[in-house]
Amino acid sequence: MQTVSVTLGERSYPIHIGTGLLGEARLYAPYVEGKRVAVVTNRLVAPLYLDRMQQALAQAGAQSVSVLIEDGEQAKGWKTLDLVIDALLAARLGRDALIVALGGGVVGDLAGFAAAVYQRGIPFIQVPTTLLAQVDSSVGGKTAINHARGKNMVGAFHQPLAVVADVATLDSLPDRELRAGIAEVIKHAFILDLQFVVWLEANIDRLLARDRAALAHAVLRSCELKAQVVAADERESGMRAILNFGHTFGHAIEAGLGYGEWLHGEAVAAGMIMAAELSARTGPLRREDVERVRALTARAGLPVRGPKLPPERYLELMQVDKKAAGGKVRFILLEALGHAVLRADVDPHLIRQSIAAATQ
Amino acid sequence: MQTVSVTLGERSYPIHIGTGLLGEARLYAPYVEGKRVAVVTNRLVAPLYLDRMQQALAQAGAQSVSVLIEDGEQAKGWKTLDLVIDALLAARLGRDALIVALGGGVVGDLAGFAAAVYQRGIPFIQVPTTLLAQVDSSVGGKTAINHARGKNMVGAFHQPLAVVADVATLDSLPDRELRAGIAEVIKHAFILDLQFVVWLEANIDRLLARDRAALAHAVLRSCELKAQVVAADERESGMRAILNFGHTFGHAIEAGLGYGEWLHGEAVAAGMIMAAELSARTGPLRREDVERVRALTARAGLPVRGPKLPPERYLELMQVDKKAAGGKVRFILLEALGHAVLRADVDPHLIRQSIAAATQ
Repeated sequence: MQTVSVTLGERSYPIHIGTGLLGEARLYAPYVEGKRVAVVTNRLVAPLYLDRMQQALAQAGAQSVSVLIEDGEQAKGWKTLDLVIDALLAARLGRDALIVALGGGVVGDLAGFAAAVYQRGIPFIQVPTTLLAQVDSSVGGKTAINHARGKNMVGAFHQPLAVVADVATLDSLPDRELRAGIAEVIKHAFILDLQFVVWLEANIDRLLARDRAALAHAVLRSCELKAQVVAADERESGMRAILNFGHTFGHAIEAGLGYGEWLHGEAVAAGMIMAAELSARTGPLRREDVERVRALTARAGLPVRGPKLPPERYLELMQVDKKAAGGKVRFILLEALGHAVLRADVDPHLIRQSIAAATQ
Repeated sequence: MQTVSVTLGERSYPIHIGTGLLGEARLYAPYVEGKRVAVVTNRLVAPLYLDRMQQALAQAGAQSVSVLIEDGEQAKGWKTLDLVIDALLAARLGRDALIVALGGGVVGDLAGFAAAVYQRGIPFIQVPTTLLAQVDSSVGGKTAINHARGKNMVGAFHQPLAVVADVATLDSLPDRELRAGIAEVIKHAFILDLQFVVWLEANIDRLLARDRAALAHAVLRSCELKAQVVAADERESGMRAILNFGHTFGHAIEAGLGYGEWLHGEAVAAGMIMAAELSARTGPLRREDVERVRALTARAGLPVRGPKLPPERYLELMQVDKKAAGGKVRFILLEALGHAVLRADVDPHLIRQSIAAATQ
């Protein structure tokens, strides 16, 4: 087991990464002993891991109930949030109860937001079971639900007490979701760490073959990179926005097609190509580096072209993206591989060109 | 104009109290200049104050839109929250926008919660137009909506940037709501300030006659008392709970009858009598002090008896009250007039007696 710390003063917490951690009671005991816990999970994850999770919690001295939600991005809305809140109230959980989010990004975002607002906030623990959740969404305290007008439009910053990332749970992950998780791994490399880009270029096939040592390293390095950014700018008043590389375009893809059509990681993958194209057009990213972004993304089995929507439709969808500060869309661009910057004053003509260069 | 400070480090803010403040642009300018603002208000308040509010914001250099919600406690739920969020998104407000909550407790709680969760949190300003909101709900950062299973079950701690309490707006307040606000004023006196109890006993008739100087003093002293408590315990991990004096019983009354039947302040008034009865039964509150609580409450034109529900039904409703920590109901009791304490280990038999002593 390896542990990464997210350093946020009294809100600091550990991310434990390793094989078989899900069932280790000692990882939960410091937080849950003598408490009541609601495990929020979905109908796909529950048959695989819920029993082991609840056994570990019982061993850790907690009394737990479970709340099952539907699988998929379309479950991440008001209706499911109310279902979870209703279940917590029906179980008469008080302010001293905890939530455990057991599942992928949807479960983590929604259960984390439920924890943020239930009785004005109760603590929670993330037990991510998808690669995307392990390397990205479970770390950093961003919780949210979607709104018909935009993704993650309603949410809160609410840090977990701990993250327990068991790479053995990735065995049960469909290939498509594994690849979607790799999109966020390579994103972290592109924006922050050239050496990690080089490692990924050498090890992408091991990741796709689910080599546990390779997966553990990828999760660890991703979490280290993300933890650094979050520690420096918890509430995204500045540099944390670089984590949204590929996401401004990616959210437009998701919103344009209706959530759930493409996986988040797939939309981000195509979005990264658009952002790299834009980075080359605005300078100083070199054309050969755009090709390295494209090549690694393609080798990961991810889309390198967005869906065929007119560039104007992309622009329109990006206007309501929540990163549009005061109506102005900000872009995260690469100056070089491993170095991202934030730019607000981008020529719309270059944006249209970049979209056109990476759509079907 | 007088100003009370709520001292919370970088979340500190002023409460301005006086006559005619609603239209004073200089009070808003430090926060809204050059920004976009959504004024959330209701259909009763809008015709009275919305124009003046939006003029003041325009003078302060802000561009504003308005969002109208229904009046009354039943508007404080998911549906109205979604309506507000939808309007903010439709107006394309970004993360740098602000909300102004113009109205009573329902508007303040709901608009404040919308601000807490819109795009993971934007700032807001409270412009309370009811006595209850001016002396209580607009101060301290508690925001929430109701759930079918309990009042204020979904919410956040989200401090405003400023509170502007214009006592001239109380001219338009129905008598019943004025009295409901006085319930929270006398609550602050009962739990924290014997001298203020004495002042209220001498001046209750001036308050009921809407003497502006008396109202301004009552608002000021209430805000000072509440600000002290909030500064000491922002997130209610301890002594802030004393502000809930009368509320454990009061919420049971509201939930038992369905929200909106009794006004919040009316339910709190009857709840304070029950809590005072319980304080005398558990000791050491003197019987003559219970009678002073009852007499002042009655002179304010407030109910001193709860609705005729069986004591067992009250107990049942109190179990789901969010102040039930780990399933145990905590009570705020008076040791003397002006001095409240928190007690968790109260004999249910005495609770039943106290309820029976103060129901119709």
